[in-house]
Amino acid sequence: MERHFEKELEELKDRLVWMGSLAERAVHQSVQAVLDGEKDMANRVIEEEPAINEMQIEVDERVVKLLATQQIMAGDLRFAIAVSRINGDLERIGDQAVNIAQSALRILRHPRVKPYVDLPRMSEIAEEMVRDSLNSLVRRDVELARNVLARDDVVDSLRNQIFRELLTYMMENSAVVFPAFELILVAKNLERIADHATNIAEDVIFMVVGRDVRHPALDRR
Amino acid sequence: MERHFEKELEELKDRLVWMGSLAERAVHQSVQAVLDGEKDMANRVIEEEPAINEMQIEVDERVVKLLATQQIMAGDLRFAIAVSRINGDLERIGDQAVNIAQSALRILRHPRVKPYVDLPRMSEIAEEMVRDSLNSLVRRDVELARNVLARDDVVDSLRNQIFRELLTYMMENSAVVFPAFELILVAKNLERIADHATNIAEDVIFMVVGRDVRHPALDRR
Repeated sequence: MERHFEKELEELKDRLVWMGSLAERAVHQSVQAVLDGEKDMANRVIEEEPAINEMQIEVDERVVKLLATQQIMAGDLRFAIAVSRINGDLERIGDQAVNIAQSALRILRHPRVKPYVDLPRMSEIAEEMVRDSLNSLVRRDVELARNVLARDDVVDSLRNQIFRELLTYMMENSAVVFPAFELILVAKNLERIADHATNIAEDVIFMVVGRDVRHPALDRR
Repeated sequence: MERHFEKELEELKDRLVWMGSLAERAVHQSVQAVLDGEKDMANRVIEEEPAINEMQIEVDERVVKLLATQQIMAGDLRFAIAVSRINGDLERIGDQAVNIAQSALRILRHPRVKPYVDLPRMSEIAEEMVRDSLNSLVRRDVELARNVLARDDVVDSLRNQIFRELLTYMMENSAVVFPAFELILVAKNLERIADHATNIAEDVIFMVVGRDVRHPALDRR
């Protein structure tokens, strides 16, 4: 029974990591579609997103089943609750990628606004935050999770920089108001992706520190 | 034991409803601060938000404790998981209210942009969605929860209307770009609040329909 439970927890973790890699790829491709004006890539992100939604439903069902059939300890419970929440965050990262892909399709209809210097940087950090938040889950690594939290400020300051730059363009040339506004929405979506990665990192800390404080004997696991 | 468990679930529900009313009031006051240029009200929202955060931590601890000390059925498990997620959504609604209050403080420094016709309407609907999502939880009312989901489209279309209007102002008069942009951010925050209410309604459906399908005998509860 105990062994089966451990195995199922490991499998759920693998599933989340897989979902996370799909979500991260969707983010990357959607931003690429914005930067390169790639219509096909934008459409692909939109088409592939339902796969992430299906995984979310599957993980939710498995968590409920797992909890219902086992007697478990507080540490594992925290883990199961964290899985359930992280699952929701990953699904919403997929939604944000779809929003970005839709912006890409609208931006295509306008002339190019600017060289987009800060947007790829912001996207890169947000993608890394998603990846590292899941790495922190896999390794139960509180330090890495805290490091993800710290990067949220970098994302916010890049966002402000992007806003300021685009608003300046808007003031100088009213013809770019629409495409510049779409880029602002993309930056908002990236900010939200970073927020979801932050939520995941907070859940990892809740899970690990909760166990550490209450069950110091289980630390080594 | 069974009785104690029921009682604790009821108390957790009451706690969420209380948190929800604090979050809803924060949203209402923050938007009021934008509309009326009320600096003191904006500051009050910012000062009072930590109370919501503290409640979130308390509810999380209680859910983990509850799950750890009881043998429970799948339906109640879904309830406990839903409580834990709804808790997170309510805390984030509080965060969004703080963002709106901060926008209010920045907007105050600029001349008034427009009569803000659609913003109060959007806020009203978002606040109602928060309230009804919690009502659907209390009454296990799937119809009401579905009704909340349906209203998300109304919010999105109001948001688009507000965007269009403000972007037109920006194009006509570059002097209003900054305050009009702050109002766009407020509309984005309200959209996100409606999204959190939608998440809550989805959790209620997950919880109730899951139980109905698997435990039809418990329907009446």
